[in-house]
Amino acid sequence: MRMYDIIAKKRDGLELTGEEITFFTQGCTNGTIPDYQTAALLMAIYLNGMSDNEVLALTLAMRDSGETANLTDIKEKTVDKHSTGGVGDKTTMVVVPIAAALGCKVVKMSGRGLGHTGGTVDKLESIPGVCTEINKDRMIEIVNSVGACMVGHNENIAPADQKFYKLRDVTATVDSLPLIASSIMSKKLACASDCILLDVKFGSGALVTDIGEAMALANDMVKIGKSAGKKMAAVLTNMDMPLGYAVGNSLEVIEAIKVLKGEQKGDLYEICIELAAHMAHLTSRLPLTECRKLSAEAIDNGTAFEKFKEIVAAQGGDTAYLDDVELFEKAEYCTEVKAEHTGYISHMNTQLIGKASMSLGAGRGLIDENIDHAAGITLEKKTGDFVNEGDVIATLYTNDDSKICDAAVIFDSAIEYSQIMPELPPLIYDVIK
Amino acid sequence: MRMYDIIAKKRDGLELTGEEITFFTQGCTNGTIPDYQTAALLMAIYLNGMSDNEVLALTLAMRDSGETANLTDIKEKTVDKHSTGGVGDKTTMVVVPIAAALGCKVVKMSGRGLGHTGGTVDKLESIPGVCTEINKDRMIEIVNSVGACMVGHNENIAPADQKFYKLRDVTATVDSLPLIASSIMSKKLACASDCILLDVKFGSGALVTDIGEAMALANDMVKIGKSAGKKMAAVLTNMDMPLGYAVGNSLEVIEAIKVLKGEQKGDLYEICIELAAHMAHLTSRLPLTECRKLSAEAIDNGTAFEKFKEIVAAQGGDTAYLDDVELFEKAEYCTEVKAEHTGYISHMNTQLIGKASMSLGAGRGLIDENIDHAAGITLEKKTGDFVNEGDVIATLYTNDDSKICDAAVIFDSAIEYSQIMPELPPLIYDVIK
Repeated sequence: MRMYDIIAKKRDGLELTGEEITFFTQGCTNGTIPDYQTAALLMAIYLNGMSDNEVLALTLAMRDSGETANLTDIKEKTVDKHSTGGVGDKTTMVVVPIAAALGCKVVKMSGRGLGHTGGTVDKLESIPGVCTEINKDRMIEIVNSVGACMVGHNENIAPADQKFYKLRDVTATVDSLPLIASSIMSKKLACASDCILLDVKFGSGALVTDIGEAMALANDMVKIGKSAGKKMAAVLTNMDMPLGYAVGNSLEVIEAIKVLKGEQKGDLYEICIELAAHMAHLTSRLPLTECRKLSAEAIDNGTAFEKFKEIVAAQGGDTAYLDDVELFEKAEYCTEVKAEHTGYISHMNTQLIGKASMSLGAGRGLIDENIDHAAGITLEKKTGDFVNEGDVIATLYTNDDSKICDAAVIFDSAIEYSQIMPELPPLIYDVIK
Repeated sequence: MRMYDIIAKKRDGLELTGEEITFFTQGCTNGTIPDYQTAALLMAIYLNGMSDNEVLALTLAMRDSGETANLTDIKEKTVDKHSTGGVGDKTTMVVVPIAAALGCKVVKMSGRGLGHTGGTVDKLESIPGVCTEINKDRMIEIVNSVGACMVGHNENIAPADQKFYKLRDVTATVDSLPLIASSIMSKKLACASDCILLDVKFGSGALVTDIGEAMALANDMVKIGKSAGKKMAAVLTNMDMPLGYAVGNSLEVIEAIKVLKGEQKGDLYEICIELAAHMAHLTSRLPLTECRKLSAEAIDNGTAFEKFKEIVAAQGGDTAYLDDVELFEKAEYCTEVKAEHTGYISHMNTQLIGKASMSLGAGRGLIDENIDHAAGITLEKKTGDFVNEGDVIATLYTNDDSKICDAAVIFDSAIEYSQIMPELPPLIYDVIK
């Protein structure tokens, strides 16, 4: 088998066999196939697409390029949850405790933030003491005793995906549905939970902005998961404005705690109830409406918040911070951003808001940069709100005041005004099973 | 300017600017752009094509990546000739002397053989003493005194093309019309003749087999040349069977001598007259019909053959071999290939015949392999000929008898038989000016 022939076949729009896909996945990962050949193939895949069979084969080949978690010591059905990423997306910290409070066993592996989107691992680490690098035995012990554990991805999970991603990132081949679907699902399958709930975001802050494409991506991933024997569901949720009101690591933890304590409703609350309900529904025989009711109850009766404290404690975190969010270190500098016009906020370019938060120090442009856990943005107004010129729209936080000006300019450029009340896309667009 | 953005633009089917094309051509050549990014761009170009403006800009950027010949010391108009390559294509050795005999100044830079096609430099070197590595001053002296000089390409001509070609060769992006056209024309423009005649071949032994594509390639190259201020013509000629009857280096020199001496007519003779006539027509005010007549006369009256001897002598070759071809070293081993069926030869897969010749030692698979100048094939029959089972179709020659069996199997597989006389495509399909 020759890489040349595989490139030529995909270039000509023909379907690759499972053997061919395994061959190049292994060869690219172990370095026997040079990067320039892989880059040419990735561009051919980007432009000519992949069939369902090809995407499944690629996903499995990437999964098999590294370790697969062994969860056999967890006697009940396990459930995982994955978000395609967004701005202000702190749902994991709300949803995982609710699901665990409802009896789910949740093994949640998360990444760090990169670019305009944050990562759950960074957010959790704003809570002093929390450790997300937990060995496998201890992780299983925590899941068995507490119901959930939230850890970082280890490097042995799908190394082929890491290799491909690095190349895609510099060859303009990231935004390819088959490559995105197989990348996400290879890692989820390697994490080995029985059930997988996907939160596929659409809109200006999402990986895939177009709702039709987001739907196609969700469909592809659900198909892959089912073919690999998983119980699957995907919820399509709105990322055309930041989720909730906080963007930035400790700011988002504080907001998640508010929701878990029942102190904040709105978009974040609604999406979290829906996601938690689907996780419970996937792992139990309960109808979805019942799961929604139980999820809301878990917040109202305090069991979800208690579960979050148990998880954080099991991972070494100081739960005093959860009881009293005033303990979180505050950013040294803050500045208010005010409305430049009177009218409705007609659109928030959410990717730009993510970039503004990143430029305050809350995120990283390169994979090994440090972050400022207290940096970020809190919103006072969101899309659809009416504002008078000079009203405070947001507050920017950072420990490095040299960063504030740039961030404010980026933030301002993200806001559009209109005299007409804008029509908002639905918060939850569809569910794919 | 970032290579990433250039890749993304071409990926999305947008037109690159001249600055962008120059940027990546320079960056790829000097190594500041990594090969994997260039490979991704080449695949995007392969699949999305290039506009006329883009192809021209790429050609000029590749030309300008190295040296451009300075021919100002040749006071008359200069003419170059390029063939897209084929099997048994010894036209240069016939056409250049005819054109020089008619008064043309011909600066001919040629390559070595690679894969199934041969190269003029290898062929000329079968004549003992001939040197094709001639410094610029001496080359111009020869052209001024004798009328023509045939030298090898030097490495300083279009280094960007060499770099791109190496990557195209391993990323399945060779067969792209804009990349082929710009590759050929960048070298021709760097060679700096005033007029350029292209021999664009079509059929099973050609770089571009399909006649429509060959036509498109010819059109593209003529357009590029004209835009760069050259007088241009392209002749589309048949390469669906080997040209003439000899394939292999000294065997082809001997055949070229026969044609120059007026001892062989047929396809090779006809194509050579046409090509030489166009060269004369490009550099003079004479009508094409007159140029055809003069070309035929140059053979009949011996001036073309005398000119060939003058050129070979100027380049250090022993002209005794031209006067008496029996002096050429003969291959130690030969074997006859006989017809397996009675009927018409309906097709000769010419690429396979080239490969059979290569496997006898006449060509090279890798760029630094040695070749056997006496190895090759002489044909007794060609497409359209009627044969009886057992008739000799060809003779295979080599100095390494371990190679004969494989070559005979390849040769056999190239021949198709039919009970009906096949329709042959025209020898000269069209001329594009």
